[in-house]
Amino acid sequence: MKKIGVMINWNKARAAETLRRVAADAAAIGLELTVDRRAAAVAGELPLCPADEFAARVEAVIVLGGDGTVLDAARQLQGSGLPLMGLNIGSLGYLTCVGEEQFGEALRALREDRCTRDRRTTLAGRIARAAGGGTGLADALNEVVVSRGSSGRLGWFDLEIDGESVMTSACDGMVVSTPTGSTAYALSTGGPILLPGTRALEIAVISPHTLSFRPLVVPDSSVIALCVARGATVAPVVSVDGQDGLPLAVGDRVELRLSPRSVTFLHLAGYSPCAVMSRKLGWGGRRDKTGGR
Amino acid sequence: MKKIGVMINWNKARAAETLRRVAADAAAIGLELTVDRRAAAVAGELPLCPADEFAARVEAVIVLGGDGTVLDAARQLQGSGLPLMGLNIGSLGYLTCVGEEQFGEALRALREDRCTRDRRTTLAGRIARAAGGGTGLADALNEVVVSRGSSGRLGWFDLEIDGESVMTSACDGMVVSTPTGSTAYALSTGGPILLPGTRALEIAVISPHTLSFRPLVVPDSSVIALCVARGATVAPVVSVDGQDGLPLAVGDRVELRLSPRSVTFLHLAGYSPCAVMSRKLGWGGRRDKTGGR
Amino acid sequence: MKKIGVMINWNKARAAETLRRVAADAAAIGLELTVDRRAAAVAGELPLCPADEFAARVEAVIVLGGDGTVLDAARQLQGSGLPLMGLNIGSLGYLTCVGEEQFGEALRALREDRCTRDRRTTLAGRIARAAGGGTGLADALNEVVVSRGSSGRLGWFDLEIDGESVMTSACDGMVVSTPTGSTAYALSTGGPILLPGTRALEIAVISPHTLSFRPLVVPDSSVIALCVARGATVAPVVSVDGQDGLPLAVGDRVELRLSPRSVTFLHLAGYSPCAVMSRKLGWGGRRDKTGGR
Amino acid sequence: MKKIGVMINWNKARAAETLRRVAADAAAIGLELTVDRRAAAVAGELPLCPADEFAARVEAVIVLGGDGTVLDAARQLQGSGLPLMGLNIGSLGYLTCVGEEQFGEALRALREDRCTRDRRTTLAGRIARAAGGGTGLADALNEVVVSRGSSGRLGWFDLEIDGESVMTSACDGMVVSTPTGSTAYALSTGGPILLPGTRALEIAVISPHTLSFRPLVVPDSSVIALCVARGATVAPVVSVDGQDGLPLAVGDRVELRLSPRSVTFLHLAGYSPCAVMSRKLGWGGRRDKTGGR
Repeated sequence: MKKIGVMINWNKARAAETLRRVAADAAAIGLELTVDRRAAAVAGELPLCPADEFAARVEAVIVLGGDGTVLDAARQLQGSGLPLMGLNIGSLGYLTCVGEEQFGEALRALREDRCTRDRRTTLAGRIARAAGGGTGLADALNEVVVSRGSSGRLGWFDLEIDGESVMTSACDGMVVSTPTGSTAYALSTGGPILLPGTRALEIAVISPHTLSFRPLVVPDSSVIALCVARGATVAPVVSVDGQDGLPLAVGDRVELRLSPRSVTFLHLAGYSPCAVMSRKLGWGGRRDKTGGR
Repeated sequence: MKKIGVMINWNKARAAETLRRVAADAAAIGLELTVDRRAAAVAGELPLCPADEFAARVEAVIVLGGDGTVLDAARQLQGSGLPLMGLNIGSLGYLTCVGEEQFGEALRALREDRCTRDRRTTLAGRIARAAGGGTGLADALNEVVVSRGSSGRLGWFDLEIDGESVMTSACDGMVVSTPTGSTAYALSTGGPILLPGTRALEIAVISPHTLSFRPLVVPDSSVIALCVARGATVAPVVSVDGQDGLPLAVGDRVELRLSPRSVTFLHLAGYSPCAVMSRKLGWGGRRDKTGGR
Repeated sequence: MKKIGVMINWNKARAAETLRRVAADAAAIGLELTVDRRAAAVAGELPLCPADEFAARVEAVIVLGGDGTVLDAARQLQGSGLPLMGLNIGSLGYLTCVGEEQFGEALRALREDRCTRDRRTTLAGRIARAAGGGTGLADALNEVVVSRGSSGRLGWFDLEIDGESVMTSACDGMVVSTPTGSTAYALSTGGPILLPGTRALEIAVISPHTLSFRPLVVPDSSVIALCVARGATVAPVVSVDGQDGLPLAVGDRVELRLSPRSVTFLHLAGYSPCAVMSRKLGWGGRRDKTGGR
Repeated sequence: MKKIGVMINWNKARAAETLRRVAADAAAIGLELTVDRRAAAVAGELPLCPADEFAARVEAVIVLGGDGTVLDAARQLQGSGLPLMGLNIGSLGYLTCVGEEQFGEALRALREDRCTRDRRTTLAGRIARAAGGGTGLADALNEVVVSRGSSGRLGWFDLEIDGESVMTSACDGMVVSTPTGSTAYALSTGGPILLPGTRALEIAVISPHTLSFRPLVVPDSSVIALCVARGATVAPVVSVDGQDGLPLAVGDRVELRLSPRSVTFLHLAGYSPCAVMSRKLGWGGRRDKTGGR
């Protein structure tokens, strides 16, 4: 590869410094970085291009920041087909697994086309309004969440799978997650971890009123609908990948299925999703760290 | 007892019919019901009195409805010292354990002063504002919840116990619950059940970002503070017993301790909180209902 | 179909009576039942054949009992390719979803070849002994469990996926489950429910010593090994589908992968695994059954 | 204080070296250590006394090892009334919170009687045999566990509280834990954490067959019985603080209540159980360690 786009999280304290270092490293090996105006002001004379025109101009995109930055980048590049590589500023994430000491190696691997490709499925969604009509949602790399608003009262939601009503739940909300999203919000709600590559989706209920529900794992060919049940007394919202939500009305249905658009990540050789998880979650389980049982 | 106040949930379909029946049964045994204007219109000529003046006029209050109705009644009667008896319209609750077939028996037990008294602790709270000043909260019979608003972004909250910082958590919110509230929202978040009479409070985190948290049970002499951490980017709210929430700002602290005001419930002889739970949660565990493991 | 084998759980109180009724119903529609000697003594003159010779003699097998009876039948018929239909004596199970009122309908559906086929994956396993050599395990329709023995001390187990060490855990044991088994023991350990047809396996840890583990869902092409870690001080066992366990020594590895042999279930038209689950777990969530939150 | 007993876990690699250092430090400040023969062989000429005669000879006991060592020491000293101080060899535990860099300070605090006293409740138990007669159990500082043996089949247990049957559960077992034990095995089974000083006991079910159970917290004045239900097909065991178990028969009852004998721990000034938990469980929750949600 020769032409690489750059997206960056300017909220990170060391963003500018990191960008300058990456730009110098890239120049040294003949990798041409394409950036937006703000990045150019920091990193010196580089080809300029807004991210939504990257598809015509670069072969891949490096994302400097954290996992949230990668989610934002994936949303902006949706449908472009451009592969992403996450370079971490700060501590390692699930999607930003290249640490700062590996930045040079990562740029060389891009230059020499030696990266592993890791295709992640995404969720396509739309709201079917009870009042008629519908609204498309952005593809979700992590998850789609339907939740009650900020009222203290319970929400009521129906879950349908492949046209069949499976459950009505009084709860704070429901989550439909990709394998990629299974280590994000779905995990907080008590869901399992789906290894990347598992051909499945996860459905979790947030703070269910009854004790009988357990997270569901379904084939990723399933069509899932989350519906605002008749009796809901609050204004629920639907949110994609942690973005601000769209309001829903009683009878509205959020219909979800696998998107035809996936997101491809580039990794250094030796990347292992299990190793990333083990390090993030502390699965080493060193014997001498355990107490007296 | 001779004089009994009545509070009723008019949203229940059979409210009027039930009230008429209770009024007739009470009259037949010389129990004088005191009601508000709306109830009088349904039940015939009865002494009128708004609920907030019940303390001066009646010896106890019967609440016709569900557990939510009892929570509302307890809030309105806060500080009155009046004991409550929950008569269920619909299916049995934790706080409304007298079913319709037992209404006559319940009225006789009140008349003859044969009820068991069951004192439940409540939580007193106030908001200490970062900007100075404070706001008192209504006593909570169930729980106080601090939660992020409707944004898709995480909230950040600090937990302090007896002045000591215990935990900072990225999460959807935190719950501090009485034993009474342990079968309500705290249960939905994965918390344990505290039997009534346990001298403890429960602290639970809602959808915590990390896996290391577990619900905490602390002596009910503890002073607990839930604080909106510096970095919160959303507008959190504090809510008491499922009521609409008050907005919080960064640095605001919700300080909670046992209230000097408890709520006393009246039960029929033979009342057992374990039996109520077992029936509500289906703990019978009949052998022939189990599958093949 | 014309020739059907019968397997039956004689421990069920109404086993004999049920068998007689099924035999009469079958005779009336020209369905020939093949049974073992004990069943013949109860049901009258029927072709005799031990279950392990069913493959050569019948086209399908009906199993009269509960889910445990179906697990036993599947083990005995392993590799025969014979499809099974579970007829329930007692309350409905996940694998015995035909209730007594539907027995006549089920026999006619078999006779007229109108059943739905539902192929379930199974797990093939072997023990690779540290001391050399190995032992094959029966295929698991539900799950394989490696657990510490009856000692009060912790066990130490390693989990490997596709040759990579993922986790070392101090715990009571580990479970690897098929989607079919996800509603059995794996559910008890806190695992998710995998809908039948999900191309995945579930890995759960039983009572883990650390808080950081969550059930894992992996592609069903994965090769999974559960290993007895060096430091284990107790005698662990490996158990298939709840059968009595085989002892393991330190360093022994239980290697698991999808079996080439699946089990096919026959269902009445309209069978829905979600409906079975919803009924077994009580997911109806009727509004009037909820308490006051 | 002047006379201190020493108990030590000889399985720790640095046991001898640590003991020598402690002995030297103690001698320097006039603290007389009393040890057993093995320790004397290592640490030089010190007063000899077996642990079961410590009560008549020393004022307090220091325990060198981990939490398991403290459990063993508490069992050996049961009823002696001697306070314990846990000095950690290895990584910090819940009961061994004095790290090696604080050993000198700890010895001085003992000498000058400046330690905080922390009284922990324990559980007294006995087995009431179905066949008649009974067997006393050692007091439990952590927990009493009734569990199925090593069979793959489910156990069936009944839970009684204050003479009332609360639940029958098909499960792997049941745990009754003190607040001290709430961070040990009970935590592994999904139970809450009870802060020391909470006047409560915790009851948890291990891998329950049904989804409706939640850990129970009850007043520590409760009398709890765990009973082997009629239908159990395996040989269950009862185990105290992780010791090897005693076998139980169908109908046997394990009766538990607060013991009149507590265990007193000595801590350095500034000891905080919340701080110990926060450090053990990683509750710091630093913002820059979180991924992208």
